[in-house]
Amino acid sequence: MTAHPIELQAVLDSFQEPWAPRTVGTVNDYDVRVVRALGTFTRHSHPDSDEFFMVLTGSLTITMDDAEVRLGPGQVFIVPRGVPHRPTSEDGATVLLFEPSDTVNTGDSPGDLTADRRVV
Amino acid sequence: MTAHPIELQAVLDSFQEPWAPRTVGTVNDYDVRVVRALGTFTRHSHPDSDEFFMVLTGSLTITMDDAEVRLGPGQVFIVPRGVPHRPTSEDGATVLLFEPSDTVNTGDSPGDLTADRRVV
Repeated sequence: MTAHPIELQAVLDSFQEPWAPRTVGTVNDYDVRVVRALGTFTRHSHPDSDEFFMVLTGSLTITMDDAEVRLGPGQVFIVPRGVPHRPTSEDGATVLLFEPSDTVNTGDSPGDLTADRRVV
Repeated sequence: MTAHPIELQAVLDSFQEPWAPRTVGTVNDYDVRVVRALGTFTRHSHPDSDEFFMVLTGSLTITMDDAEVRLGPGQVFIVPRGVPHRPTSEDGATVLLFEPSDTVNTGDSPGDLTADRRVV
């Protein structure tokens, strides 16, 4: 078999559009994704799945109805299924995501920021 | 709800033993784990699951029968299910793992390094 590391930063360097995740690998029926965050994303929830966020660079705030977390590099937060959340990043962030492969970025709130699954 | 970031480095700072993963969170029925690598681990495979590795600090080599990958910080490799692999780290590494919560670290090759699931 061929075996090369997946270079998260190289994938992130290959695009600039925010809120458009790239799937860099799969673990069974889960996706490993990277995404650029910039500005304010849609408030949404995923009724059927938890969602893993780990900030790689920059700073990301996840606002829920009664709580908010601010994540810097190396910090993780897992949004429980069904919990509405709105990610924001004033100055930009790059983020690692881990979630079922059929997860749509805007969850139960489709709109202009809804992104197709893109595998790199 | 209470909402705090998960501090991977703080969890890693709380123990020193190598090859003994700590589960820092769950995404549905998957575990997010951190582990310290030092020396040579058991050659093993996971017949029923892929396994995600991302190096946080240091360097990790994953040796398979006909390939080997060397991972540094921010690099990812996903070992396909059923593929025998032997992780080694001469100088030590800290590693993020994603895998089903019932995954045992030594897979199909239990032994002295088999670790119970430890949730922090």
